[in-house]
Amino acid sequence: MGDVTRRLARFIVDSRWADVCAPVQHEAVRAVVNWLGCALGGCRDETVGIALAALREFAGPPQAALLGRPERFDILNAALINAISSNILDFDDTHLRTVIHPTVPVASALTALAEYKAAGGAEFLHALVLGIETECRIGVALAPEHYARGWHITATCGVFGAAAACGKLLRLDEQQMTWALGIAATQAAGLTEMLGSMAKSYNIGHAARGGLVAALLAEGNFTSSEQGIEAPRGFGHVLAEHCDFDAIVDGLGASWALTQNAYKPYPCGIVIHPVIDACLQLRNGHRIDPAQILRVVLCVNPLAIQLTGNPAPRTGLEGKLSLQHSAAAALLLGKVGVEQYGDACVADPRVVALRGKVTASGDASVGREQAQVRIELAGGLQHELFVPHAFGSLDNPLSDADLDAKFRVLAREVLDENGAGRLLGLCRALPTLPDSGAIARASASRLPASA
Amino acid sequence: MGDVTRRLARFIVDSRWADVCAPVQHEAVRAVVNWLGCALGGCRDETVGIALAALREFAGPPQAALLGRPERFDILNAALINAISSNILDFDDTHLRTVIHPTVPVASALTALAEYKAAGGAEFLHALVLGIETECRIGVALAPEHYARGWHITATCGVFGAAAACGKLLRLDEQQMTWALGIAATQAAGLTEMLGSMAKSYNIGHAARGGLVAALLAEGNFTSSEQGIEAPRGFGHVLAEHCDFDAIVDGLGASWALTQNAYKPYPCGIVIHPVIDACLQLRNGHRIDPAQILRVVLCVNPLAIQLTGNPAPRTGLEGKLSLQHSAAAALLLGKVGVEQYGDACVADPRVVALRGKVTASGDASVGREQAQVRIELAGGLQHELFVPHAFGSLDNPLSDADLDAKFRVLAREVLDENGAGRLLGLCRALPTLPDSGAIARASASRLPASA
Repeated sequence: MGDVTRRLARFIVDSRWADVCAPVQHEAVRAVVNWLGCALGGCRDETVGIALAALREFAGPPQAALLGRPERFDILNAALINAISSNILDFDDTHLRTVIHPTVPVASALTALAEYKAAGGAEFLHALVLGIETECRIGVALAPEHYARGWHITATCGVFGAAAACGKLLRLDEQQMTWALGIAATQAAGLTEMLGSMAKSYNIGHAARGGLVAALLAEGNFTSSEQGIEAPRGFGHVLAEHCDFDAIVDGLGASWALTQNAYKPYPCGIVIHPVIDACLQLRNGHRIDPAQILRVVLCVNPLAIQLTGNPAPRTGLEGKLSLQHSAAAALLLGKVGVEQYGDACVADPRVVALRGKVTASGDASVGREQAQVRIELAGGLQHELFVPHAFGSLDNPLSDADLDAKFRVLAREVLDENGAGRLLGLCRALPTLPDSGAIARASASRLPASA
Repeated sequence: MGDVTRRLARFIVDSRWADVCAPVQHEAVRAVVNWLGCALGGCRDETVGIALAALREFAGPPQAALLGRPERFDILNAALINAISSNILDFDDTHLRTVIHPTVPVASALTALAEYKAAGGAEFLHALVLGIETECRIGVALAPEHYARGWHITATCGVFGAAAACGKLLRLDEQQMTWALGIAATQAAGLTEMLGSMAKSYNIGHAARGGLVAALLAEGNFTSSEQGIEAPRGFGHVLAEHCDFDAIVDGLGASWALTQNAYKPYPCGIVIHPVIDACLQLRNGHRIDPAQILRVVLCVNPLAIQLTGNPAPRTGLEGKLSLQHSAAAALLLGKVGVEQYGDACVADPRVVALRGKVTASGDASVGREQAQVRIELAGGLQHELFVPHAFGSLDNPLSDADLDAKFRVLAREVLDENGAGRLLGLCRALPTLPDSGAIARASASRLPASA
């Protein structure tokens, strides 16, 4: 297995858009809709504002739009900021096998480069598909040990995805693409220790920017090792104890990672999702009056307890990792969106009171996408529901209409209904759009930035 | 050991220039002279030219000089390019215990920021000392396993050094400095697999730039983990099997890494240096006519054979890691500088012929800084010499005058004698220089860049 990097490079370089099957082509559009919605919802977060304020003094010419914002930046800084915006809400997509959030690092770099180069929509989508394929295959080769050790896999693998996608758009030849992947390999970084701080989203932004730099340097024939991934002192051996190199190159072009990509209906830890489904269905199906609830009993997979069993979250960020808060918010408010994971909602006395009535236990016979929820009401009445496949899982995916609805809610942060509808139309038209840069430009807010 | 990052941050923030003892203050000036000379010698290398050409289109305002070049860049790109220039010749300094080349990542970022902020010379030197202290202490905690695994330690630790130095210059408070070190931790990257390609020096440039970004973000209160170095999923545990966290904070302010810093007299692998010393001394002491040489017998530490036993190098880069080439060049030409490691010299038929007469063997009783060389001449005469401490080792260091001479030779690439002398004077005057940016500006070549 002495030529993993080169074989991967050759696949990326040789791939034609017509080689990508129609369902994967369509999935790429769905990934863009989800990613862009997340960016619009997140682009006014304080994290984005601080990064912008710290770096704008040193930024280059206004070459690319910042998603959802009025500013324009050089493409490298745009890649960084776009990735922070689209990752900050924890609402982005998930390649479930690796827990990579695949679209953010790739699309964030690509959209800046594509706007600058006035690349067509099909070319954009093709590069996106190849970038996601590259990062997810490398992630599969390392999972799960790499992430468990503390590597933020969306960043460490995302830099390859961004390099591959941008390299494809730049039409690198095989040798240049091999170098681009090598320059990506030597920039691979990012610690899960940063989760819970602003640096979490910086990791992804840094990867997006680094992948774009790798492609630009390689275009100029800046050399790297030609075995950046597989050499004894290359990425695979240095950043993991075990790397399944075959997984990176076997079946290239025959299977596509995008078919395993999931979109979140709720901006919180994915293991909480089946509980939210159950609570919303019970509330709406039985017209439950929250004031009558005596007790809420959750039975979930033990992993959900381990990761998100937090009966008393103090901040919105902690609420995103609280089963109890999520159940209470769903039952009380009838919806679970960005607002329900704000500091105000987490501190709301009504939510706090209902949260105190929620108990959760783990049961290994309940799958990770499953939950059993029982609600006991005053007067002895009780309702119970089992969710076999959480909404948003691969067996119960968000439809195109669901994704559109998610997009419209998130877009309200910066666009009016007309603007959001127009932007959604551009996304859906991507396969035939002459200039993909129209999307980033149309996303730019005409409202003054609050952050 | 739950507060390594914060304790290190506190030390950096609290340190005063008067706390740094005079020999270390002076060593900082020597480090600058050596680093700047390397940058002037390397700034027209093809690697620098390609990086500049690839990135200039996206660069920001002309805020900082590029060492030895006519262009001015934003400070982030200047940090990157300056580090590539000063590392590319493999002539930079070495902290022997860790094999970190400490000045390049720290000074390259710092000089750009210091020029932009018009920081004084003492402030510049103080920040430099603290940055070098930070990166070398972190390196000591990981050495030697981290490097042996494939981590390019000058890059992985250099990003901390650059963050610490730039953070000091920005006068971050303890909390901000803790974040800066955390943002550095999550950017730590760089593979030794890149050695032998242009990406080797990119690693160091990327670290310099990343450290500066970390400091700028932290200045704006961009948060990170507050245990970026010591947490279970922080830098120390993720990038090494064993990290001696005590080594990072024990005796801060009482011992200084700069006292263990060595400067190379020859731009090649450090294990070759004692052989070059012996050859030059034998040649000059005995007025040896190269044409009379029948045989050259080298007896060296086995590590020197392992790393640099190459009787037939094909390129200048390979020549830098060839004992045989180095011995032949020293005996034939009487000097061993950048020119002697060019492709032309390595291919020179006279050098090739003499190289064929060189034999080398390893002997574990010969230290790494030692060599025994015997030269057999036509007519039966032979000369022999044992070098106990290579020139440039800590026991036989380059004097200030030696460093000045090295600087002047390297500076010829871009400056005339007067310009070089003036620049050297500015370096030597750094402790009292009102604006340290004068150095970078004075280094800027008035000659058109050839690359």
